[in-house]
Amino acid sequence: MSTREERLLARVALTWLTEPGTWSVHRLVQQLGPVAALDLLLDGGAPDRRLRETVAARQPAGDPRAVAADALARTERVGARIVTPEDDEWPAHLDDLRQLVLGGVNRRVDLETAPPLCFWVRGGWPLGEALARSVAVVGARAATGYGVHVATEIGYGLADRDWTVVSGGAFGIDAAAHRGALTAGGVTVAVLACGVDRPYPMGNAALFDRIAETGLLVSEWMPGADPLRPRFLIRNRVIAAVTRGTVLVEAAARSGAAQTLHRALAMRRPAMVVPGPVTSAMSVGAHELLREHREARLVTGVAHVLEEVGRIGEDLAPPARGAERPIDRLDDEAALVLESLPRRGSLGVDALAARAGVDLRTALRKLSLLEELSLVVRRDGGYAVAPSPAPGTAARPVGAPAGQPPPPGPPGRAAG
Amino acid sequence: MSTREERLLARVALTWLTEPGTWSVHRLVQQLGPVAALDLLLDGGAPDRRLRETVAARQPAGDPRAVAADALARTERVGARIVTPEDDEWPAHLDDLRQLVLGGVNRRVDLETAPPLCFWVRGGWPLGEALARSVAVVGARAATGYGVHVATEIGYGLADRDWTVVSGGAFGIDAAAHRGALTAGGVTVAVLACGVDRPYPMGNAALFDRIAETGLLVSEWMPGADPLRPRFLIRNRVIAAVTRGTVLVEAAARSGAAQTLHRALAMRRPAMVVPGPVTSAMSVGAHELLREHREARLVTGVAHVLEEVGRIGEDLAPPARGAERPIDRLDDEAALVLESLPRRGSLGVDALAARAGVDLRTALRKLSLLEELSLVVRRDGGYAVAPSPAPGTAARPVGAPAGQPPPPGPPGRAAG
Repeated sequence: MSTREERLLARVALTWLTEPGTWSVHRLVQQLGPVAALDLLLDGGAPDRRLRETVAARQPAGDPRAVAADALARTERVGARIVTPEDDEWPAHLDDLRQLVLGGVNRRVDLETAPPLCFWVRGGWPLGEALARSVAVVGARAATGYGVHVATEIGYGLADRDWTVVSGGAFGIDAAAHRGALTAGGVTVAVLACGVDRPYPMGNAALFDRIAETGLLVSEWMPGADPLRPRFLIRNRVIAAVTRGTVLVEAAARSGAAQTLHRALAMRRPAMVVPGPVTSAMSVGAHELLREHREARLVTGVAHVLEEVGRIGEDLAPPARGAERPIDRLDDEAALVLESLPRRGSLGVDALAARAGVDLRTALRKLSLLEELSLVVRRDGGYAVAPSPAPGTAARPVGAPAGQPPPPGPPGRAAG
Repeated sequence: MSTREERLLARVALTWLTEPGTWSVHRLVQQLGPVAALDLLLDGGAPDRRLRETVAARQPAGDPRAVAADALARTERVGARIVTPEDDEWPAHLDDLRQLVLGGVNRRVDLETAPPLCFWVRGGWPLGEALARSVAVVGARAATGYGVHVATEIGYGLADRDWTVVSGGAFGIDAAAHRGALTAGGVTVAVLACGVDRPYPMGNAALFDRIAETGLLVSEWMPGADPLRPRFLIRNRVIAAVTRGTVLVEAAARSGAAQTLHRALAMRRPAMVVPGPVTSAMSVGAHELLREHREARLVTGVAHVLEEVGRIGEDLAPPARGAERPIDRLDDEAALVLESLPRRGSLGVDALAARAGVDLRTALRKLSLLEELSLVVRRDGGYAVAPSPAPGTAARPVGAPAGQPPPPGPPGRAAG
């Protein structure tokens, strides 16, 4: 049996070796635990070619275990801590990300949306508590005065009602939302696409310092990690997944912020959009979302936002996910078998059992259950995902129970 | 048999005697023709107490036939003409207003939404042709610079693509839409709530003159009629009914312009709303409509508007009304029986036959058809409107065939 320290080190090494969000790594860790999963990958035993190549490409950069040990030391040095699913403060509902697994198109950020292996956190709040009653406010970096005004108002209003404001720490709308929350004396969380010791952009350094003092800086990447471009999109799934709903204020056509809203829509979380002048290029993306998605809700201020998230917030129940579907009641093994099916085409039961890491008898038993629920069909002598129902399984939260409201002020609890 | 002149005079007298939009008058005219309907009313034979009182209250103001004769002379003097359902230029689809009959609440403007008895028209275009490819653009009088800009752009863009721009001639959005159309050299129609010889507001006098030169001024009220407050709301049903769709640009909370959009929604015409800054009081009503009505469509410019109305515009088919319902196939007598049922409670078959103006045997035959179509149920020994299906009957257009596109320029045809 591995120690907690060994498992922590393995998670950090895996994050560095394979980038956050990789489904095959997530599955391996669920099946084998992080230590054995790391061993397997380093021995060249990755279950698919792409992952084997990723691991092989990364190894010349250093010994993953040594890199991880360095990262642990640096984490302590910069006053941060690592939070894993084993910890009480792990945020609830991250497993709703499973609902995104089959919904993607071709880009990596659309395909690789697995829950994080661990978070780096700077700030005094227990992560799960800070996020239990939270709303994401996201939008354009090149925001207009109008957008900044509205985002500040919404950030202020949410914080004033004891909701945590989550955003990405970027210029423009993100910064305005954080600032609004800070002005109200509330809690705000910046989810970063780089190390928590060097939050990006530098121009927001003073803002990040204030957030770390009274709220949290959070990242899936180790201290020192660069804010590489794809990481922003990988990060966006976390912003959508850890909050009760996402509000978009200003977005140009096809923006990253709009992509965060798509994630919220896919997870059936309230997806809210603030309209703006039709003459503003910075509202084009917002209006597109409202035209294209019936489920996207037009909101004009904090009262409307609270109407959407408050329904589920007042009683501290878990986020609404629409009517319960068969898929929501699957046990872990059945979910694993379902997830192990290829997105296209079919797979024989032997290969499927191996891929899911269950024995043949279990695979057959779970497949017959899945067939009964119309989630799986027999095809070409094997099994395939049934064409129509919405994908994903909503497993139970991994760590702490959901829905603890944040205490009235920062807990002053020592970091680490 | 009455002459055309007698029928025209009777329609004018009825309009003066009972205000446009009164359903019981509309039904009497359908049953008896305008001349006999007028005789009946003047003899105190109105079918319901409210109408009897209305007629009695009006009569001291003058002999209705003499008032109508004066109105005919004045119509000629001011260079206007009267258009009735007997004329080729009567607009198509006005009978869609029947879809509003059972949908109202308590106010007269919500209950009395019958098609007009006649129109006064100033301008060279045949009325039906000018309206065959038309879009309504309506909104706040106290418009902002933003709203005026957007309404002008949409008015221009529509006219530029040979769509007629219909509005109410008011300050603010209405005037901007008309001006945009005029600037593009297109056709625009102002539907007024007062006489076409003294269009209101006076401040738009120069605008009205330009509209009369190249487009049309239209009213249900005789020359000299005052723009009384309730008339604006009565007028709004016409703006929604004669156009292929209605665009709302700026509205304060609970505005008259929003009511026009409700009419369009009730008739299943495209109901389009331009969003604005959430910080603007003049967009509050627009955003409310978008939040409350799933069918209301967010549009940001003329391209989106054409997408909505163009589907039905390109092939000159009649406006889309959703899937055909049983109610759409009713013959006139069945529709009459259905319309004669009280909005609440039930009515015995004898009373119902009398009210509908059909004999007992016809009433029973039509009731059994309506029962079969689930439009009517037996209750308390009588008949009542069935609770669920959408109300109204979409009768065939009364006058000219629909869908004649306007010729490229004003026809220069003599008015009258």
